[in-house]
Amino acid sequence: MTLGWHIIAEFEQCSRSSIDNIEYVEKHLNESAKIAGATIVKSVFHKFAPQGVSGVVVIEESHFAIHTWPEHNYAAVDMFTCSEYMDYDKALVYLKEKFGCKVFKHQVIKRGENVVNQPSEV
Amino acid sequence: MTLGWHIIAEFEQCSRSSIDNIEYVEKHLNESAKIAGATIVKSVFHKFAPQGVSGVVVIEESHFAIHTWPEHNYAAVDMFTCSEYMDYDKALVYLKEKFGCKVFKHQVIKRGENVVNQPSEV
Repeated sequence: MTLGWHIIAEFEQCSRSSIDNIEYVEKHLNESAKIAGATIVKSVFHKFAPQGVSGVVVIEESHFAIHTWPEHNYAAVDMFTCSEYMDYDKALVYLKEKFGCKVFKHQVIKRGENVVNQPSEV
Repeated sequence: MTLGWHIIAEFEQCSRSSIDNIEYVEKHLNESAKIAGATIVKSVFHKFAPQGVSGVVVIEESHFAIHTWPEHNYAAVDMFTCSEYMDYDKALVYLKEKFGCKVFKHQVIKRGENVVNQPSEV
């Protein structure tokens, strides 16, 4: 049994202006969470000087996070979900398009495997 | 060249009451970020009913995130840093102790490898 799935996604050769725009990045990371079927709890974003955006969308099912390096046309995204019904593939395709990304790769890491019925502590 | 390091950490057989206490979890995740040498930007935490805590600390160097399953004495932590000088080992040991965790494992994923000097888009 697995409690969560952690999607580690690399977006390369993105549109520099898109991933340096905090309003744009926040809007579309939130939208991608909705598209995946997540329920948004809170969203917190931060713009760095001279460039780059960091942001996290806390969802009922865990989180979506992004960190961008506009100077390298690169965005690092991770999506953590405890719901096996979340459609993260749809969210990844959406972000790839919105960021004008030409090279994309991702991996899925299982979280909390085999922790059910282990010896417990109060 | 690598832009970031993403530490994926599994804390098993934790103290159930510790990882179900939002104030306790928020305090110690923030403290672990400071211990690692991070500069905290914002912290956002959420308590789930009937149990569990999710939280993210956005740092100048990226983020620290946690999701807990008290019913399985399990906490999933990830630390994303773009600073090669961050002492995440010290932060992990600190959290292991504070959560009363008996089984601990982690992996480090390089983020943004070989994206410098790729073809760029405006």
